[in-house]
Amino acid sequence: MSLMIFLFMCAENVLSLHIPNFCPHCGSDRIISKVPQGDERMRAVCKDCHTIHYENPKVVVACVVRDTELRYILGKRSIEPRIQTWGFPQGFMELNETTRDCAARETIEEIGIVIDPSKLSLLAIYNLPKQVQIVYEAKIDSQSAEKHAQSTKECSEINLFHIDNLPPENEIAFPTVIWALHHAHHRRDISHVQQRTKLYDGKTWKVITDDDIIENA
Amino acid sequence: MSLMIFLFMCAENVLSLHIPNFCPHCGSDRIISKVPQGDERMRAVCKDCHTIHYENPKVVVACVVRDTELRYILGKRSIEPRIQTWGFPQGFMELNETTRDCAARETIEEIGIVIDPSKLSLLAIYNLPKQVQIVYEAKIDSQSAEKHAQSTKECSEINLFHIDNLPPENEIAFPTVIWALHHAHHRRDISHVQQRTKLYDGKTWKVITDDDIIENA
Repeated sequence: MSLMIFLFMCAENVLSLHIPNFCPHCGSDRIISKVPQGDERMRAVCKDCHTIHYENPKVVVACVVRDTELRYILGKRSIEPRIQTWGFPQGFMELNETTRDCAARETIEEIGIVIDPSKLSLLAIYNLPKQVQIVYEAKIDSQSAEKHAQSTKECSEINLFHIDNLPPENEIAFPTVIWALHHAHHRRDISHVQQRTKLYDGKTWKVITDDDIIENA
Repeated sequence: MSLMIFLFMCAENVLSLHIPNFCPHCGSDRIISKVPQGDERMRAVCKDCHTIHYENPKVVVACVVRDTELRYILGKRSIEPRIQTWGFPQGFMELNETTRDCAARETIEEIGIVIDPSKLSLLAIYNLPKQVQIVYEAKIDSQSAEKHAQSTKECSEINLFHIDNLPPENEIAFPTVIWALHHAHHRRDISHVQQRTKLYDGKTWKVITDDDIIENA
């Protein structure tokens, strides 16, 4: 490994570790980052009560909704981040719900469409910085899609798009939306699950690595 | 919904929400559980700085390793929880790694087997309380399996088991181990991903709900 890459990885690790101001266990303000004994990674550790504050990736669940005319339903976000851009229903998974339930909840909340969690098909798993995104696919009939495609609390506008007529890339909320729509459109085998890792600089959306792996391709 | 079920769900929600002793942001000890404005769920909220401390499920990644003679490699755990019982490689996903990398890391750490992350096949997604478990499957040749099946820092013993000759159920670390081994053994289509939700009482391993859904079955 080159020194440059090693230094970049160290900087990346230190930058990405969140150090709380105060220890949630004992209230001390003496939290440091160190590698605890028997561990191999930097952690936030309280110097007073020695509690290790682990930080792990969060689960985001998303849903690609397609109608019988092969149109995809996207919402124009009226909430941050990426307000006023087009996205699919997605959000952080809550305690006491399942990934399927989370997909169905986000779908009703964001684009007003009721879907049956048991009918969802697993579409993709995307690894992003500090986040694992699990994407499901739902199919609904065109009449339902048109009837329910109206604004919600979280989206000022809902619209149906053919794959070759999507909004311009800079008006799409996140790269994962584009990946998932194209994967949904092109997978022939319903059970072909895409797994992809892209790490990007959140400000410029520049892709810095791409070790795309197509499951069972 | 019956009153009993409603009360059970409320109790479950309150019990499962973790309230920090001190606010990690401002150090106050006045953390309460409440539903913040515009939200629908109970959260730990600081009464002084009003920070909402979200709690989300963690990602656990596991790996079923099978050799060419259809034997599964399990390790006898020398670490808690469930010390001295048989399990497959699994652990919490770290920041700055992918689900595949995590599966490969846990496999070398727990059973001493080196696997290529790009060769892993997605096997199952299990929803457990406060946890999403993503299970991969790896195939290795019998010679490698036998050569490397020796103790590690985390497992006092490594062994190869045929599906009809597994250790007794009470000597298996977690229900997910049994689910995943049987699913790996019985799925014909390599891309058939099992998704299952079981909530159980961790003390008695009693299954309290089972809304098993087989993907594309």
